[in-house]
Amino acid sequence: MSQPQLKLTLEQGLIDLDRSLVRATLDDYHYADIGEELAEFNSPEAKQLLSLFALADRASLFAYLPPHQQAQVAALMSRNKLAALISRMEADERADLYKELDEEQRAMILPGLAQAEREDIRRLASYPEGSAGSIMTSDYATLKEHWLASRALKQLRLEAPDKETIYQTYVIDRERRVLGTISLRELILASPDAMIKDLMRTDIVSITVENDQEYATEQIRHYDLLAIPVVDDTQRMMGIITYDDAMDAAVEEATEDAQKSASVGKLDESVDRASFWQLYSKRIPWLVLLVFGAMFSGAGLAHFEDIIANHVVLVFFLPLLIGSGGNAGSQAAALMVRALATGDVGKGDWAKLFTKELLIGFSLGATMAIAVFALGLWRGGIDVAAIVAVAMVIIVMFSSLIGLSLPFLLSKLKVDPATASGPLVATIADVGGVLIYFGLASTVLGL
Amino acid sequence: MSQPQLKLTLEQGLIDLDRSLVRATLDDYHYADIGEELAEFNSPEAKQLLSLFALADRASLFAYLPPHQQAQVAALMSRNKLAALISRMEADERADLYKELDEEQRAMILPGLAQAEREDIRRLASYPEGSAGSIMTSDYATLKEHWLASRALKQLRLEAPDKETIYQTYVIDRERRVLGTISLRELILASPDAMIKDLMRTDIVSITVENDQEYATEQIRHYDLLAIPVVDDTQRMMGIITYDDAMDAAVEEATEDAQKSASVGKLDESVDRASFWQLYSKRIPWLVLLVFGAMFSGAGLAHFEDIIANHVVLVFFLPLLIGSGGNAGSQAAALMVRALATGDVGKGDWAKLFTKELLIGFSLGATMAIAVFALGLWRGGIDVAAIVAVAMVIIVMFSSLIGLSLPFLLSKLKVDPATASGPLVATIADVGGVLIYFGLASTVLGL
Repeated sequence: MSQPQLKLTLEQGLIDLDRSLVRATLDDYHYADIGEELAEFNSPEAKQLLSLFALADRASLFAYLPPHQQAQVAALMSRNKLAALISRMEADERADLYKELDEEQRAMILPGLAQAEREDIRRLASYPEGSAGSIMTSDYATLKEHWLASRALKQLRLEAPDKETIYQTYVIDRERRVLGTISLRELILASPDAMIKDLMRTDIVSITVENDQEYATEQIRHYDLLAIPVVDDTQRMMGIITYDDAMDAAVEEATEDAQKSASVGKLDESVDRASFWQLYSKRIPWLVLLVFGAMFSGAGLAHFEDIIANHVVLVFFLPLLIGSGGNAGSQAAALMVRALATGDVGKGDWAKLFTKELLIGFSLGATMAIAVFALGLWRGGIDVAAIVAVAMVIIVMFSSLIGLSLPFLLSKLKVDPATASGPLVATIADVGGVLIYFGLASTVLGL
Repeated sequence: MSQPQLKLTLEQGLIDLDRSLVRATLDDYHYADIGEELAEFNSPEAKQLLSLFALADRASLFAYLPPHQQAQVAALMSRNKLAALISRMEADERADLYKELDEEQRAMILPGLAQAEREDIRRLASYPEGSAGSIMTSDYATLKEHWLASRALKQLRLEAPDKETIYQTYVIDRERRVLGTISLRELILASPDAMIKDLMRTDIVSITVENDQEYATEQIRHYDLLAIPVVDDTQRMMGIITYDDAMDAAVEEATEDAQKSASVGKLDESVDRASFWQLYSKRIPWLVLLVFGAMFSGAGLAHFEDIIANHVVLVFFLPLLIGSGGNAGSQAAALMVRALATGDVGKGDWAKLFTKELLIGFSLGATMAIAVFALGLWRGGIDVAAIVAVAMVIIVMFSSLIGLSLPFLLSKLKVDPATASGPLVATIADVGGVLIYFGLASTVLGL
């Protein structure tokens, strides 16, 4: 989504160091667009361009640079300029920047910040990647239960510039425990003399810092929330996660799952920006592992050397049979991985789904067997046709059940169910398919 | 996420027809939870339970039933009750219900509604599934540019109960063309005497009714919007899409893409609720199609019958080689499908990525070739080892390039790139792999 006119203006502004030209872009473009365009410049240029904007805008734009570029630009700034910038950034965004900095840079900027800011940054930066804590912010608005609606509104008006949202607020007690929630819409509609205590909703939906960010997103979506409060185990408020950060996290997770479904490791960059080495190193481990897995099908075939030598026609159906098993297994795995991710299916549903899959796998296999029976008859006579058809049914059932069960097994072993990728299931289906097919053939053809 | 206590209370309320017991659940549970629990009852029971709630709550709860159950419950209600319920539903939700009703039911309810409501429902229900129009709502708040901030606030307070959001409002002219946008936060912070014209933002992000719902979601996420205005081709406002509906659409799309990636058709139900027939019918078409595709690998093998008969050892490496090709191809396809879906990669990036993949595919293949060379040496001597290793490099390159290119080709043919599933790529890789492997073997072993 490059904007050619914006790019030209920024390039001109960089040459002329023209503040007003550069600042005028804010009238026509959103921060997101300008920030995205800035990311296309190299770090010294981006730093130069940023310095032409007023501080508040600079902080907003800076947040749209990719993390590694933020760190590079930060390294080029003077200590004071950087501290000023960081003070103006949103709490969750500056914590993300902090994580990107090296020890030296951290030591450089921390003294320039107020005590409360330092602690806030350290705290927010301390949560592990993927946890709810890692995407929460501390810029949320709180109210007291004995306030009147009018006072609450006045307070929110004062705090609005510094808060990530004032549309959803939280009523807390002295220990910062959440007592209730109230939306700005409810506040505006209430009588000015109504007490917050009587207005607030007490059926609070909250999560803890240790929860997965996926869970945060799911709760926000389920309850149509603008933000969800994050609490510690004594119900004290630690921060909030806003819907927009949850949406970003959801897209990130979906990308990760889509890549895992094809046995690709987590990329830190988008595919078009990722280097050769990044792409290679995220793809090769599973490929090599699966090569070793596939060696078992080779060993299986070696075991049946005699029957293959005597009935070469059997080989013709081998890719068809093991491929079909892999396909049906991949389908079952993809359905389960996604259902587990969205919460449609729980860990305890395995047995019920297994029984259902038994019937589905049989029916799929039987349908496909009809398709290959004719081919078998033509190529190898009735014996071969029968072997191929029966093998198809058994292989498809076997693979479907493996595909269905593997995500549950992984989830039980605390491994992301998405690891049950198409390639992994297909490799297992290959080994099983070879044994089933030639095992059956040996029995029928009597070798 | 079943709530056992809530379930018990509702069951008791159903037996005793106890209004106050049933209504009290609203103090402790969200609409989303109660609605979800109601969906577990059969339709006559759900209808009975709904009738125990006050009308406004009933409309909110009803919206959480799955579409087919909504239609069933609606069929059990009297014409007047149903019309009253529909009047109280949110504009986008009642349009979704309308789509589920048959002609007779539609004819029954329409006369009970006001003229404006009838037109609104018909209009919203007219947009095709998957379009921005199909998930937009007409319950949005508008302002006039000559109003003062104080008047705007007063107006919003009046309209709040009927609007899906008042946090984002739209300034329109007499022809309902969008002139600007303003948030409630900006309104609250502005001086009461400021004119809307001077407060509004004019860099409007909007979409058209024909845009994909995916595009709507992407814009909302990119610009961190609460809602996006949907306009016609003369910039007249037709509706808005709110972030929560966009989130739902995004999850739905991600599920659809995850299923497509394994060649499963779009399921209208979650996996645990889907019937045997639904699951069978969404999985079998691609499986059978791929069986026919895989027959080409059988035909390829038949062509090489003599060399196979003379060198049975070659067969041992067949699943390994074609499986590896399928795995590498699936990786490339998954990366491209997702990158095209998120917009990280555009249709025009194919040539650049193809060149990169050429090198990556070669490196992946070479690494895997090393792993299989030793095995080849042990099983079949230097000739076989060399054939297997070289075949691995070529097959992995071929499959990776197919996997990378197929999503672009499909996108060019206006087919969803996600159709380039793992199973489809693996089947093509199988056919190519058989030809490459035995073609190479024939040349080297001279048959």
